[in-house]
Amino acid sequence: GALFRSMIRSPDNDRLKTIRKLQQKRWREKLGLFAAEGEDLVEAAWEPEFVLRAGEDVEPDLLDAVSTLGSGTRVIGVYRQRWAELARSGAGQPAPSRTAAGDLLVYLHGVEDPGNVGTIIRSAHALADATVVLGPGCADPFSPKAVRASMGSIFARPPARAALEDLPGRRLALDSGSGEALGEIRLGDGPVVLCLGAEREGLPAEVLDAADAVAHIPLRAGGPDSLNVAMAATVALYEVERRMRGHA
Amino acid sequence: GALFRSMIRSPDNDRLKTIRKLQQKRWREKLGLFAAEGEDLVEAAWEPEFVLRAGEDVEPDLLDAVSTLGSGTRVIGVYRQRWAELARSGAGQPAPSRTAAGDLLVYLHGVEDPGNVGTIIRSAHALADATVVLGPGCADPFSPKAVRASMGSIFARPPARAALEDLPGRRLALDSGSGEALGEIRLGDGPVVLCLGAEREGLPAEVLDAADAVAHIPLRAGGPDSLNVAMAATVALYEVERRMRGHA
Repeated sequence: GALFRSMIRSPDNDRLKTIRKLQQKRWREKLGLFAAEGEDLVEAAWEPEFVLRAGEDVEPDLLDAVSTLGSGTRVIGVYRQRWAELARSGAGQPAPSRTAAGDLLVYLHGVEDPGNVGTIIRSAHALADATVVLGPGCADPFSPKAVRASMGSIFARPPARAALEDLPGRRLALDSGSGEALGEIRLGDGPVVLCLGAEREGLPAEVLDAADAVAHIPLRAGGPDSLNVAMAATVALYEVERRMRGHA
Repeated sequence: GALFRSMIRSPDNDRLKTIRKLQQKRWREKLGLFAAEGEDLVEAAWEPEFVLRAGEDVEPDLLDAVSTLGSGTRVIGVYRQRWAELARSGAGQPAPSRTAAGDLLVYLHGVEDPGNVGTIIRSAHALADATVVLGPGCADPFSPKAVRASMGSIFARPPARAALEDLPGRRLALDSGSGEALGEIRLGDGPVVLCLGAEREGLPAEVLDAADAVAHIPLRAGGPDSLNVAMAATVALYEVERRMRGHA
């Protein structure tokens, strides 16, 4: 392949400029694209718009110059954004969703840190094959930090954007210090929407009020009053998945 | 107080220079100090070497210039490093340790990401009042990213540095894909040392071989073959703490 490709030798090259632009959210939204760096992510990815490899397609220094990794990179791919489609539920009836076996959705509200969003996408994929749904105020899941934290799960299980009321399933809201202990919740049958809020503010009152159940992760007295939101999501996914599978 | 303090108006001020140096590991080690930014951390801290507040002790722009936060900061404190002391066990007998109620230690091997180290310190403190013990190849827990991720737990429960063989308790090694499912492990009575390794390599063979039990967090087939190490640690802390307390 390398024989028939011409090597990029100028920082003004259009593809390099595109990669640089995609570090910014407004350009990602405008172009509907995003970048992923490193062999593991590029291997996990769907069909690229283009891929640049150091020493094959582009001079290594030029690729490093558009990398968001401190250490530079060997490969960067550019991809069209994809969002999961979730069927709407009509008149309060649960509709079939595109979620897989687990019938579990993770709804996030106000989770601003892209590393947390990406990590939750990874945990949801690994533990429960659950799709993450981004509500208001969440970080862009296609930002470099989020893509990296997802470790490729952004490609296997892209997130959805949807309003909470459109999601099928019983709503289990996680709220530090209120409701029942997570391990004592009875989930019943059918799909579940696990809801988590911002680290400080938690879920807004209207989400808590509309929940079918509220649960907390038991923390010992005298310590911190919350976990990092990605930690809370992962513990909840572990517990809920186990219960939905009938292991507890 | 402000009346009797003189305002720092030069970037060459010694205290500002110290804060800047403490962004580097070699200076943190040389001076035995570290910095914490923001009101929440400064409130959670032990006695400072000094604290600089924007507009009281220092011109706001000068404080922002030595901040590691993109957004700048209102307050930075500088503190002497403290490490937890753990009593050594003689001749294979568990010795009394300084760990609190839970009698649980978290031993990390090769966890290089400072955000993960800080987050694990927070989760260990919140879920189990457990002390984190840093083995070879771990990130500096007093780096800015680790301190921030700990959300103040670095002050409440400073980590220890120790060799695994000196730690009291039965060793439970977490290893993705081997051993029993975490939820099926029988812990017995007495203290436990939960061992976790680097994200890719996992724990080295000698640690696995010397473990009293090996467990994995069940992940569904066809998805990622591991969780982020801070996620794995937090799920394991949740499960082990519950079992040690007899809730499962």
